Amino acid sequence: MIIPNWLPALNWARTYTLSDFRNDTIAAVVVAVMLIPQGLGLALVAGVPPQAGLYAAMASLVTYALFGSSRTLSVGPVAVLSLMTAAALSRLPLETPAEYAGAALTLSFLTGAVLLLAGFLRLGFVANFIPRPVLVSFVTASAILIAMSQAGLLFAVPVSGSNALELLLSLLANLPDFHPPTLALGLAAIAFLAFCRKRLALLLVRFGLRRSTARSLSRTGPILLAAVTVWLSWQFQLDQAGLALLGEIPSGLPAPTLPDFSPSLLGGLFLSALSLAIVCYVESISVAQALAVRRRQAIEPNRELTGLGAANLATAFSGGMPVAGGFTRSLVNFEAGAVTPAAGIFASLMIALVVLFLTPVLYWLPRVCLAAVILVAVYALLDFSIISRSWRHSRSDFLAVAITLGVTLSVSAEAGIGAGMLAAILLHLFKTSRPHVAVVGRVPGTEHFRNIKHYEVETSDALLSVRIDEALYFPNTRYLESLLFRLVAERPGLKHVVLMCPAVNDIDLSALESLENINDLLAESGISLNLSEVKAPIMNKLAGSRFLDRLSGRSYLSQNQAFENLRK
Amino acid sequence: MIIPNWLPALNWARTYTLSDFRNDTIAAVVVAVMLIPQGLGLALVAGVPPQAGLYAAMASLVTYALFGSSRTLSVGPVAVLSLMTAAALSRLPLETPAEYAGAALTLSFLTGAVLLLAGFLRLGFVANFIPRPVLVSFVTASAILIAMSQAGLLFAVPVSGSNALELLLSLLANLPDFHPPTLALGLAAIAFLAFCRKRLALLLVRFGLRRSTARSLSRTGPILLAAVTVWLSWQFQLDQAGLALLGEIPSGLPAPTLPDFSPSLLGGLFLSALSLAIVCYVESISVAQALAVRRRQAIEPNRELTGLGAANLATAFSGGMPVAGGFTRSLVNFEAGAVTPAAGIFASLMIALVVLFLTPVLYWLPRVCLAAVILVAVYALLDFSIISRSWRHSRSDFLAVAITLGVTLSVSAEAGIGAGMLAAILLHLFKTSRPHVAVVGRVPGTEHFRNIKHYEVETSDALLSVRIDEALYFPNTRYLESLLFRLVAERPGLKHVVLMCPAVNDIDLSALESLENINDLLAESGISLNLSEVKAPIMNKLAGSRFLDRLSGRSYLSQNQAFENLRK
Repeated sequence: MIIPNWLPALNWARTYTLSDFRNDTIAAVVVAVMLIPQGLGLALVAGVPPQAGLYAAMASLVTYALFGSSRTLSVGPVAVLSLMTAAALSRLPLETPAEYAGAALTLSFLTGAVLLLAGFLRLGFVANFIPRPVLVSFVTASAILIAMSQAGLLFAVPVSGSNALELLLSLLANLPDFHPPTLALGLAAIAFLAFCRKRLALLLVRFGLRRSTARSLSRTGPILLAAVTVWLSWQFQLDQAGLALLGEIPSGLPAPTLPDFSPSLLGGLFLSALSLAIVCYVESISVAQALAVRRRQAIEPNRELTGLGAANLATAFSGGMPVAGGFTRSLVNFEAGAVTPAAGIFASLMIALVVLFLTPVLYWLPRVCLAAVILVAVYALLDFSIISRSWRHSRSDFLAVAITLGVTLSVSAEAGIGAGMLAAILLHLFKTSRPHVAVVGRVPGTEHFRNIKHYEVETSDALLSVRIDEALYFPNTRYLESLLFRLVAERPGLKHVVLMCPAVNDIDLSALESLENINDLLAESGISLNLSEVKAPIMNKLAGSRFLDRLSGRSYLSQNQAFENLRK
Repeated sequence: MIIPNWLPALNWARTYTLSDFRNDTIAAVVVAVMLIPQGLGLALVAGVPPQAGLYAAMASLVTYALFGSSRTLSVGPVAVLSLMTAAALSRLPLETPAEYAGAALTLSFLTGAVLLLAGFLRLGFVANFIPRPVLVSFVTASAILIAMSQAGLLFAVPVSGSNALELLLSLLANLPDFHPPTLALGLAAIAFLAFCRKRLALLLVRFGLRRSTARSLSRTGPILLAAVTVWLSWQFQLDQAGLALLGEIPSGLPAPTLPDFSPSLLGGLFLSALSLAIVCYVESISVAQALAVRRRQAIEPNRELTGLGAANLATAFSGGMPVAGGFTRSLVNFEAGAVTPAAGIFASLMIALVVLFLTPVLYWLPRVCLAAVILVAVYALLDFSIISRSWRHSRSDFLAVAITLGVTLSVSAEAGIGAGMLAAILLHLFKTSRPHVAVVGRVPGTEHFRNIKHYEVETSDALLSVRIDEALYFPNTRYLESLLFRLVAERPGLKHVVLMCPAVNDIDLSALESLENINDLLAESGISLNLSEVKAPIMNKLAGSRFLDRLSGRSYLSQNQAFENLRK
């Protein structure tokens, strides 16, 4: 039976078993329990109505299950995208909350469209150009920005701004008006969640539970917190005491929505959608790959783009917000035993039950509890060690990290990921344009050739041997030409040049014509150009051109042979 | 004695001899004779008053002689920059010829400023990112555009447009109104110039002249043509017959001019100046380097940027137009025996004499002769063989050539060079993101390991050996990860993975963390990760991190040792 390429779901659906069903259902419960408070909280981070987080999770879980290639990736609202959504929308002239929510749908739509198009054009490799240190520092800086915005909910004061300084100043300015009961509840909630995260699983294991069960139970912290605080705020009418509650949420499944397609909105959000798409893809594929390999499954990057694109489009038409594969949530899904994407469909059904029947209960949920959930979640994203690790490894890695952190914190998350990526590519191009090249001589009594700077070696005034440790292509041809001619200009008695090529893996047309040029110019000065130790595939490529016929010297199989022949 | 870094002229001026003076003077005469008609013609190509070409040559020759690093580069108006100037200015809302000429000065100024800034920031390496095939196809396509615009002068009909199609349609539409006498004179002039270029030197040699003298004499074709046609049009008052003459040119040296610094003009020309600066630099440095190496002199790319920047600034303040080192003219200067940049100063003085005393003569010069000079000059720039050469060499070289030709001809020269450069960089990044990797096995009876696809080799179900033929860095880490995990997923009985690294020249932090990740994930599946034949500098880098301690397998000195140890 042939599986349609565009519907990977048939891969697992055909062989679905009862045991798969049991495993997936358990994982679905754990994920849904985690997703409900996170989805509500992340919607508030993005500045859209809280139910948008739940709608987005429902729509994207089902769509991704049908079109995505990862079996255990758990998609839905994630912290970094919510932050970027808030920043993108805050730049637009939006007035009412309805306009704001509508623009979030347009952003989801554009993000999904960009991802689908990239999948269609097979651009999955673009993710390669975000180095790991740039991604880690981007996520760290974004987590700081999210934490600062959530600090406002913790102190119950308004906080605004798109960069760290603005957020900090606005928090400090409003801090004197903080609301002590809210802060007290928030700190208690954080302490409880941190306890669940760090200690509860160990404690449960000590009480004799299985490790996996203990871990899954410890993930219920947020929902326990929600249950307790809902009861408290209902019982004691805490809103009378000034505690901000989640409030009215429409009951029932989301009605189909149409994003706002006005040209000014599409234009204003297009670049943001591009950044969101890149971040969504890179974050999701990293998690998906890490999980797939543990079960020896494979991820198809271009299909992953399609799955994520479809998921974002689905949220755009169901009143949601931009989504991606969440790191922690996917790990939880995996560890709770999910074996197929059906787990996502079941989780989606459970959230649907909440939306259908539990909205009167959610009314009483204190907003500060959601802030606590988000604060504890983003704490896990912080990784400051990237600064010292990159510093120790190389200056260029450190520079890319510093630029990413600096721009994300001082300008915006969107600018940060863009600047980090650009800096990394430019540093990379700069490095490849100056390949490692060594003037070599023979180690006496051997046939080995080594750098004359580091070894006592035999050389000859008539002969210049240069080893090139890099493929020859356009970014480095001009550099090699000037280097070579400088070396030649310094050596008045020179008669022969040998390029030692054992590490030359490729040669493009620029390099080939550059070699012809070098050959002709050296010949005019009465100097022969020779090659040694050229790899077979490269030799085949050279044989197809006129170069070998025009070569003033010869191509030697070994550098030693060239040295013996030309030293006099 | 210490030579100030910023004034390389002192290098040659200190040791200037009488023989140098004689050589330089002869070369100066040849270059001036060539430059005068070309300068006038190129000014018309750019759409500025004809004298601007002469002023630009005078100012830039002297300035470059003082600040440039090449001894024989002949700067002045060049075809490609004149075309780009015309295109940049035609996009602006300029009305009078005076506004047009003023904007050309602003463009010169901005181009000079960009070049100086690039020199100060030591950005000379940026030229590396224009591959030779892109440059050649850009120059070829530009020559076509110039020829099409000059065809208008040949037929004496107005031609306008910035791309090939527009130019062609406008030429065809106006062709019925062509002026037969102008066309006849133009064709005769082209035939004469082609004869001088192709045959005259050979003929003179046959008459017993020295080869170098014959060559220099054959370069006087354009000035002979000018003398004869000036005499004809004066004698027979050819303007009465409808022949377009060069007309009134102000007599005397140029008065200092101030470019127009209005913000709208600066803004409108900035991107154009960036392209002009790149083309100016890449064209000049290519010629300068080719000539320098023939006399074993060295070119300092960043000083070259300064020299070209100063030359363009000088033209901006003397009523000129953008300048660069011309390919043919520099070669002529070199072959005529120029030994120092003083030749440029002398050529400048001779042009000054023409401007001072010969403008009444130039009045009678038919414009169609200048068009003939330019047409014959740009003919030498055409190189259509780049299409077949790049096709034969590789698809990515061909693609870059096709994009450059296509965009230059169909949009504009500026867009063409930008698109070519961008395409080349993107293709390069795409290629580096998928390095060559081979699954290897042992050639029976030897210690050599070869690709299992191409050789009959020994392998083991418990062992996967992968040779990586590329440095490990962020553009390829994700690709390697997925490739490796796909290979692992295909092999159920696998116990060990060996990465064979003899060609790994570098490893960045992304790659190191990717290796750690691979190591940990494989370990979870009970598979050990091993390395073999890691180069010493890379081993030192790894030793500085935690990676080697965490490695689940070992690092082997030879692949054979790894194979023997792990095959069971």
